[in-house]
Amino acid sequence: MSAPLDARLYGVGLGPGDPDYITLRALKVLQRADRLAHFCKRGRRGNARTIADAVVAPDPAREIALAYPVTTEIPADHPDYAAALGPFYAESAARIAAEVEAGRTVAVLCEGDPFFYGSFMHLWRRLAARFAIEVVPGVTGMSGCWTRAGAPITWGDDILTVLPATLGRNELEARLRGADAAVVMKLGRNLPKVRAALAAAGLLERATYVERGTMAGERICPLRDKADDAAPYFSMILVPGLGRRV
Amino acid sequence: MSAPLDARLYGVGLGPGDPDYITLRALKVLQRADRLAHFCKRGRRGNARTIADAVVAPDPAREIALAYPVTTEIPADHPDYAAALGPFYAESAARIAAEVEAGRTVAVLCEGDPFFYGSFMHLWRRLAARFAIEVVPGVTGMSGCWTRAGAPITWGDDILTVLPATLGRNELEARLRGADAAVVMKLGRNLPKVRAALAAAGLLERATYVERGTMAGERICPLRDKADDAAPYFSMILVPGLGRRV
Repeated sequence: MSAPLDARLYGVGLGPGDPDYITLRALKVLQRADRLAHFCKRGRRGNARTIADAVVAPDPAREIALAYPVTTEIPADHPDYAAALGPFYAESAARIAAEVEAGRTVAVLCEGDPFFYGSFMHLWRRLAARFAIEVVPGVTGMSGCWTRAGAPITWGDDILTVLPATLGRNELEARLRGADAAVVMKLGRNLPKVRAALAAAGLLERATYVERGTMAGERICPLRDKADDAAPYFSMILVPGLGRRV
Repeated sequence: MSAPLDARLYGVGLGPGDPDYITLRALKVLQRADRLAHFCKRGRRGNARTIADAVVAPDPAREIALAYPVTTEIPADHPDYAAALGPFYAESAARIAAEVEAGRTVAVLCEGDPFFYGSFMHLWRRLAARFAIEVVPGVTGMSGCWTRAGAPITWGDDILTVLPATLGRNELEARLRGADAAVVMKLGRNLPKVRAALAAAGLLERATYVERGTMAGERICPLRDKADDAAPYFSMILVPGLGRRV
């Protein structure tokens, strides 16, 4: 049934966290690739690699850990962020290219879907002209979250708006005012700002908070029951649409 | 690794079309459920059932075909549409409830992700209070399409706007004007209207047309190369974002 592994580089979406949501194609690539690369914080195992634990045992000879020089210490719109991340992605791409050129297949493990806010995209744009790359789409984190929350997100002609919480307060409010259904991602320390924008847009009562959706430590509650202390990176807010029920 | 099948009713996302993008959980449910239900046009096999062919052989004793009384003959915002579809979903829910009450597990096969514009939601809202339902999230059609198009959709702080092509011309234009990244779904006969809205919003040159993404007969081209004749139901337009490249 499955196509052969004929690319040399793979960007593999592993889904929202529960390893049961890995696809058949991702499983095959994980089992067969010579090298398994993943992004992580320095000194910590990356979440994508942890998701894959259920299907591929750790094997030091296969692993390539790409450790970010910075993560949330510098805001992503600060010049220092690009100054630090640009060389990091260039170096990571060179490291992977060297493996491929040595004749090895490399799978880059990605949370969710690689082409939806994925770090892999920064490797892909540097390497796509050099090598055949197969991207394996994955179940997004937001699909995992609305599934576990029992919150069908879009009905009928609902428009879905997906917003990074890193946007400014006024931009968030304006976008939420026009939204039918909304997902606010990358919460972290932005939760108080997002809550204020949701309240101003009249959406607070419809908002559900999901932390670590589909993973160990999952927490789901109405946003009004979640305190404004920091939310983890793997948290988001869902505002299901009110579109046509038939 | 996998949780037991302890619910009695399942809404199973099968992904965008290529059976390799079925998840491990969906595979397990397909293999074990007593009944496999799917929506279809009258006299035709449903696309969700076709996706599952690669992993579960047709078996008349297991199959439940839920044939829509109308599909695209009546616009979805016309009163006759709800008048026809409401009783159909109620009857379908009753048919499935009878199976569950007779002690059988039922899997409802869904294209893409069940909680993202899914017909299954109309069964779910009728049955969720009566039975334990497990929903298995799937890779969305849009993830499949942007993957095959080689078009990473959202970068940095890009906002993603997902629009049904069934919206009015002016609403489409207004939403597209404010979009960073956009996906326009449910094209069908709406293609000329969507093209006009994209042109007015200055996005025509960035738009990619994807027909039957990840399936047999897949076609991907710049929208400018696609004629305004009807597009099939399984087609969409992608406008990738221009956000932060690091």
